[in-house]
Amino acid sequence: MQERIEMLRALMRAKGWDAVVVTGSDPHQSEYPAERWKQVPWLSGFTGEAGDLVVTADHAGLWTDTRYFIQAEQQLAGTGIALHKMRVPEQVPIPAWLEGQFGSDGLIAVDGLCVGADFAQSLPGTVISIPDLLDRFWEDRPAIPQTPIFTVDPGQSRREKLEWLRAFLLEQDCDGILLTALDEIAWMLNVRASDIEYNPLVISYLLITRSEVVWYVLKDEVEDPESRATFSILEADGVQLRPYADIYYLPSEFQGRLFVDASTLNYQLYSALVAASVPLGEGTSPVGLRKAVKNPREVAGMREAHLQDGVAMERFLYWLEKSVEAGREITEWDAAVKLGQLRADQKDYLGDSFETISAFGPGAALPHYITPHDRAPVIREGGLYLCDSGGQYGCGTTDITRTVPFGRCSALEREDYTLVLKGHIALAMAVFPEGTPGCRLDALAREPLWRSKRNFGHGTGHGVGWFLGVHEGPQDIRQNLNPTPLQPGMVVSDEPGIYREGRHGVRHENLLLCVEAGETEFGRWLAFEPLTLCHFETDALQLSLLDRDEIDWLNAYQERVYRTLSPLLPREIAEWLRDKTQAICG
Amino acid sequence: MQERIEMLRALMRAKGWDAVVVTGSDPHQSEYPAERWKQVPWLSGFTGEAGDLVVTADHAGLWTDTRYFIQAEQQLAGTGIALHKMRVPEQVPIPAWLEGQFGSDGLIAVDGLCVGADFAQSLPGTVISIPDLLDRFWEDRPAIPQTPIFTVDPGQSRREKLEWLRAFLLEQDCDGILLTALDEIAWMLNVRASDIEYNPLVISYLLITRSEVVWYVLKDEVEDPESRATFSILEADGVQLRPYADIYYLPSEFQGRLFVDASTLNYQLYSALVAASVPLGEGTSPVGLRKAVKNPREVAGMREAHLQDGVAMERFLYWLEKSVEAGREITEWDAAVKLGQLRADQKDYLGDSFETISAFGPGAALPHYITPHDRAPVIREGGLYLCDSGGQYGCGTTDITRTVPFGRCSALEREDYTLVLKGHIALAMAVFPEGTPGCRLDALAREPLWRSKRNFGHGTGHGVGWFLGVHEGPQDIRQNLNPTPLQPGMVVSDEPGIYREGRHGVRHENLLLCVEAGETEFGRWLAFEPLTLCHFETDALQLSLLDRDEIDWLNAYQERVYRTLSPLLPREIAEWLRDKTQAICG
Repeated sequence: MQERIEMLRALMRAKGWDAVVVTGSDPHQSEYPAERWKQVPWLSGFTGEAGDLVVTADHAGLWTDTRYFIQAEQQLAGTGIALHKMRVPEQVPIPAWLEGQFGSDGLIAVDGLCVGADFAQSLPGTVISIPDLLDRFWEDRPAIPQTPIFTVDPGQSRREKLEWLRAFLLEQDCDGILLTALDEIAWMLNVRASDIEYNPLVISYLLITRSEVVWYVLKDEVEDPESRATFSILEADGVQLRPYADIYYLPSEFQGRLFVDASTLNYQLYSALVAASVPLGEGTSPVGLRKAVKNPREVAGMREAHLQDGVAMERFLYWLEKSVEAGREITEWDAAVKLGQLRADQKDYLGDSFETISAFGPGAALPHYITPHDRAPVIREGGLYLCDSGGQYGCGTTDITRTVPFGRCSALEREDYTLVLKGHIALAMAVFPEGTPGCRLDALAREPLWRSKRNFGHGTGHGVGWFLGVHEGPQDIRQNLNPTPLQPGMVVSDEPGIYREGRHGVRHENLLLCVEAGETEFGRWLAFEPLTLCHFETDALQLSLLDRDEIDWLNAYQERVYRTLSPLLPREIAEWLRDKTQAICG
Repeated sequence: MQERIEMLRALMRAKGWDAVVVTGSDPHQSEYPAERWKQVPWLSGFTGEAGDLVVTADHAGLWTDTRYFIQAEQQLAGTGIALHKMRVPEQVPIPAWLEGQFGSDGLIAVDGLCVGADFAQSLPGTVISIPDLLDRFWEDRPAIPQTPIFTVDPGQSRREKLEWLRAFLLEQDCDGILLTALDEIAWMLNVRASDIEYNPLVISYLLITRSEVVWYVLKDEVEDPESRATFSILEADGVQLRPYADIYYLPSEFQGRLFVDASTLNYQLYSALVAASVPLGEGTSPVGLRKAVKNPREVAGMREAHLQDGVAMERFLYWLEKSVEAGREITEWDAAVKLGQLRADQKDYLGDSFETISAFGPGAALPHYITPHDRAPVIREGGLYLCDSGGQYGCGTTDITRTVPFGRCSALEREDYTLVLKGHIALAMAVFPEGTPGCRLDALAREPLWRSKRNFGHGTGHGVGWFLGVHEGPQDIRQNLNPTPLQPGMVVSDEPGIYREGRHGVRHENLLLCVEAGETEFGRWLAFEPLTLCHFETDALQLSLLDRDEIDWLNAYQERVYRTLSPLLPREIAEWLRDKTQAICG
């Protein structure tokens, strides 16, 4: 790693750059980049999902947030790369740090493809964009993926979606909109592929004008029959196909006013549009919000996906309990593999929605633990096992975390387990006025923890796509003051936790569907309905900490899990689940 | 009123203006203006504390928020002035409304003295500033007040405060700062007066440069000995005194870069500074935040003020209960007068901190009810009486609401009373991480109400000054996503409510002091400590709705009220209070 950074420094000296900023993103500002764009791991060895690197003549630093502090400290040890902590009160974001180093005189180089226009413009000094900056050192750099593309039917046709988007263009007085976020493009065209691990997306750009639809998608000659069939369907619907790299002709070709979303538009393309004097309408793409509100067919699909996922989860938890009881040596990795197999048995399963976190004991104290392939810890009596996983199904996306006690829990484990569940239930039970943003509900899930001065360093909830990214906006439930109101049809996770370094971690996660809850003289009301179907372990509870309402909620949920899943499970597992879901008394 | 609006329209026609915007504020963007600047009531008849008026050739509209809808509907009836609702999802603020009427071509006249620079710049079209626009119609318009000015000793000297502010100037690379918010000026100079009802403020401007302090304060020749003594003290400290109106020489006189806060700087002065090419540093004045964090002496003073206030409140509640029991005819007005007298008996009392809301039955359904002087409703058995009041004491400021049942409560009254108290207690008991803004705690006070689909249309808490405004920023606890973190030493109100038009209203309000609550492996913690000392009526509670924790909190609070106040009360009232504060069982 140090060698790679030194190569970069040699280039910096030759070019006279004061700093190079390397981000963890791709040309579409995707949350998960394809291998080609995993530049931060390549340079630094840090593999966390969020991290940006800054290299100057005498400093190399990695910026990441609370979720990855422990992992970063481990992976950066000995590299000479300093950890810069984000989402802490004393945080110094990259622009402010650079300003502190170079004032407004710095010459800052970035790979403009992998830097958002918003971010690049926030950097102080002079910003130079060098597309594929690392190409000159990175010899075996992977190519841009091109996987088979297929169509989906989410209950709204391409035509309907286009009509709606064109109404938006009229409203905005724009002649076209360039979609750059990959999940927005997949949603808009009702297409999916596997260009990015865990994300059924197609790396591409989509231009929609008042009369045309141009999809910049072809990386190589397309030979697979699935993609060819998809292209025929799209062409019949009037979609023009062009090479992916042709997007760089857009600035010179486009006539009129173009709507762009600077949060997912890369700086290279943005600069080219500005240089070509294309009049820009800048704002938040309307697709994100529309996509987040699931239609009835998508909701039905999500329910079906959670039914299949629940069957896989219960089979998994049964297998794990019996195996550990029988004294078989099951590692965290074995467990993750087994869960993947059980999901793969489900009829609509197409892959995992993210890398399974399978963590026993101290490993679970890392909210985003990566289970090691080799020499993974063995799951045994005397600790909490945390499993955070999800599936991509043709009918929807899932994301679930369960924490399972093996052997007797310590008093602290029991308290933490119970307080986190109280937080989970508080959010799940919430009733709130129409128009409420998720950030206003975040404290409900934390209050039971706060009372005993415990907390967790990640958000409580994120949006989830319909057979799309397991993380999607624009809504969320977290500390940041995101003003987006929750709306009926939105799906969010409910996943409070507690992490004690070197000891244990607890997290309980269901996906919740936001639903209407009637109207009173005080206005219109919303509430949540759990989509996830999988029992919680009640053995680990300290019952005296639970209120009547919480016990009632839990008993009703457990009963629903049993009633819904048991007909789909083998008899011995159904009987085991009957036992696991027995009502508890307060 | 219609006549006055027609006079304004005649002027508009003569001048060619498309609209006149008249705001409810003064040249300092004060929350409560002096009589001279009560332009909206003079023009419209609406006397609510928040309201702006827009007049066009064929429309006159009043913009106000949820707190004043009922009052506005009553007071505007028959005037032809339409009510424009704010703080509702469908709100159309004045700038957007004007844009809808005139696009960007409108000619909009304002009295630039009474319009903030921020607001004026948000208006579409061409904005013309006419100082004292209404002078030509308003013949007996009151003069600018000039009341006796005295000094206070809050534990920090003028010198210390100046030193701190000059360090800020250096940091900001500015040569001077113009303070325009009246409470900031009073805080800075340790002076008070009575220029504005309920607010111990001096109408003035304060310029602080690296070497000078200039106070633009003199409206007329000063003859009262108190002000003269104060001026001598200030002059000895190096403060120069100048006529109030001399502020308009500032743009031509000032040399260097001037820091201003556009949220309290009026548009007239702002435009003059811009026209004179004075380089401006614009931002939030640092005084607001510093002032909000009370020092130990101010905290001690607030405690003393609440002790005196508690004595007055308990004497009042005793008197009221006994009077109504005895069948005496006590009106809402009589009650407010009596409470004022009992406060006036307290040693440090200097006035009320706002107009007492004394409301029985349906009147209490208006969160900001104005008790009528004549023919006020009589307080009698069979209803809830709500009293929201506060005092200005030389040692601090108070603000308290109690809701008192007379006779048997209906089931709904009882439920509302209890749910609001649950909300109050939830916030009072909150423990939260350092850095948490109040908006993240707002839902804690609402959640018990939300669960049964009830809500209230005002904020849960506002900051309170130290012998200054009863409302102060920058912190608050409300729906709006105000990012200001709560800090130890800040004072906020905790005042959830429920209002049922035509039936009843409930509000429970204490002031809370934000305090440190230790450190754990999860970070540093804050909590609240009630400053207010006055019992809650437990007769009106539906005990089955209260949790163990809530009952414990309430019993401990009631006991503290009894122990603290009873030695200061006559024996029969102390005995009555013993009874009122008996512990309840869940």
